[in-house]
Amino acid sequence: MSASEGLSIRPAVEEDVPQILEFIRALAKYEREPDAVSATAADLLRDGFGPNPYYWCLIAELDGIPAGFALCFYSYSTWLGRPGVYLEDLFVLPEMRGRGIGKALLRKVAAIAVEKDCPRLGWEVLDWNTPAIEFYRAMGADFLDTWRNVRMSGEALRRLAGDEEPAR
Amino acid sequence: MSASEGLSIRPAVEEDVPQILEFIRALAKYEREPDAVSATAADLLRDGFGPNPYYWCLIAELDGIPAGFALCFYSYSTWLGRPGVYLEDLFVLPEMRGRGIGKALLRKVAAIAVEKDCPRLGWEVLDWNTPAIEFYRAMGADFLDTWRNVRMSGEALRRLAGDEEPAR
Repeated sequence: MSASEGLSIRPAVEEDVPQILEFIRALAKYEREPDAVSATAADLLRDGFGPNPYYWCLIAELDGIPAGFALCFYSYSTWLGRPGVYLEDLFVLPEMRGRGIGKALLRKVAAIAVEKDCPRLGWEVLDWNTPAIEFYRAMGADFLDTWRNVRMSGEALRRLAGDEEPAR
Repeated sequence: MSASEGLSIRPAVEEDVPQILEFIRALAKYEREPDAVSATAADLLRDGFGPNPYYWCLIAELDGIPAGFALCFYSYSTWLGRPGVYLEDLFVLPEMRGRGIGKALLRKVAAIAVEKDCPRLGWEVLDWNTPAIEFYRAMGADFLDTWRNVRMSGEALRRLAGDEEPAR
């Protein structure tokens, strides 16, 4: 699928933060977790647009109208000795789909990874999202299914942190 | 298990880079990928100890002898609007195990996450590593098994990047 005429992809600027938050909320709804977003515009502004940003973001527009976004941070491969690009969110508004916008966003992220000499681009996909899985497989993506994702948060994280003994 | 007497955990400094590389190689061997490490000391120095480091690292020493390490970078949660800590590598030398060094490293990483107001600590575990999985579960970790890890690298990544159409 080739990208639509009238499509542009550009780095997000501070003024895009309210739109980014709308995209994040719409994506959470699509992922069946509509109440999971507690991020505020102030959070996104502080963390993405300061001197040492934690993330970076691309905005896709179709004829000047926001259509989707990609939000990334840098990972690190100790085997390769290079940062990688981690794609945390990729989303196109449902009414804007079928025009190649998602693939155009992914291409741009890949181009930035190559430009910055990041040898890996990683992301996650929900195991029930068969169309996305087939799409990624067709592009030559690998699925790292021998690895399980582990997370500590909330009370378990605080408990573990509180257990820490002072270095002697 | 309480940490051993004589154990200290400290942030890595530039002079630790050769030791960090040894730990990385030893971990790759444990993960059954002994030839996977192409990182050099120069890579690790550039990426971990410049003005905007891509990773940070803790060194565990027992009676002043290097025993293990933890290497992390910052992820980002768009749902929470906060960075998270991602634990890329955690390793204790085989001959130093059974003294609580791994848990002490993990505790210190958790303490740093809490101190920096990072609500999540994430990492991965190989699905055949049952002792580690049980250890993490006992600590209250969650396993995000509905998500599959996807990666593009090498020729597939370059091809995708090359496909990118200029923004119009």
